Amino acid sequence: MSITDKSVKDFVEEVSNKSPTPGGGAVGAVVAALGAALLEMVAQLTVGKKGYEDYEVEMERVISEGDYRKKKLLELVDEDIEAFNEVMKSLKLSKDTLEKKKIRSEKLQESLKKACEVPYNLALEISKLCPSAESANEFGNKNAKSDAESAIALLEASFRCALANVEINLKSIKDHEFVSSMEEAARELEGKIEKCVSKCKGN
Amino acid sequence: MSITDKSVKDFVEEVSNKSPTPGGGAVGAVVAALGAALLEMVAQLTVGKKGYEDYEVEMERVISEGDYRKKKLLELVDEDIEAFNEVMKSLKLSKDTLEKKKIRSEKLQESLKKACEVPYNLALEISKLCPSAESANEFGNKNAKSDAESAIALLEASFRCALANVEINLKSIKDHEFVSSMEEAARELEGKIEKCVSKCKGN
Repeated sequence: MSITDKSVKDFVEEVSNKSPTPGGGAVGAVVAALGAALLEMVAQLTVGKKGYEDYEVEMERVISEGDYRKKKLLELVDEDIEAFNEVMKSLKLSKDTLEKKKIRSEKLQESLKKACEVPYNLALEISKLCPSAESANEFGNKNAKSDAESAIALLEASFRCALANVEINLKSIKDHEFVSSMEEAARELEGKIEKCVSKCKGN
Repeated sequence: MSITDKSVKDFVEEVSNKSPTPGGGAVGAVVAALGAALLEMVAQLTVGKKGYEDYEVEMERVISEGDYRKKKLLELVDEDIEAFNEVMKSLKLSKDTLEKKKIRSEKLQESLKKACEVPYNLALEISKLCPSAESANEFGNKNAKSDAESAIALLEASFRCALANVEINLKSIKDHEFVSSMEEAARELEGKIEKCVSKCKGN
């Protein structure tokens, strides 16, 4: 069972309780899925409308992209929770002997890397929605302009959630090569998103 | 039944389909509730922790505030959908006679005002979370810093959703006094949120 099978109300309740999962990463993935869904809706409200004939093909593309991406984003909700739980499990391993301490440290580093990779993948998925966000904002039905604007605000925010989760986990990772390549990849995505946001806001 | 009783997955699906509801306003209310829930979680993870004794009282306040506010925000999800549906209903009224045209116009203006007030109330609720967002970011458990950062990103984005929905509906309202007082009130809230966001990012 996926946590996204829970009701919206219960999911919100689970976020708020004392357990650290679902946390910012999982919530970010839900919000990104909502952003993707709004883009899809804007495109649905544009297709077949008078005056928007020129954008028909692009809007059909936005619909497929939004549909595909929102499902992938929802999968990341569970993955993020799982990755964080693995970190918690590693932290609880015994450090009684030198051998056990070594095993614990290895497991912890491994789980931390995974806990970076999941929000990085979230950021990557969000960045792939940039062309659709730009199309919805520029060519989408003007009556749904507030929905296109909402979508880009949500994608930007969920990207921030993803990045915050990459960064906090990177702080505990000892593999410098992993850290610097992850930082570089994250910065690259950040540049992409910022460009997309300013392009959308220009319309 | 509230739409927030639907599963996260089904809610995302409903957003994406051809019907304009749930749209950016309703989605913004869900995202704001998730932001409130994250603030509550950060406070839960701070209370009782060594080194955070001085913030115990404030964190207990954040917990109550987050709990109260997330529930109010979830109620706004249904209210937003209802308000938009009323606009749609007014638009479908007959304009066959002069009398009917007049009635339709009055109903439409009335429903548009309501469709402005609901997202305005959403923006207002979000602004009331500012002190909690600042406390969670400044004094919250450092291990949950990424969650506090995620929360403020989500509150900012949901505020943008609310504002976009106020603005798009204001465009069709003929009561100039209503429009200018709503615009002024919205700008005031915007100033509050921007201050809060830059304060949170400074920590």
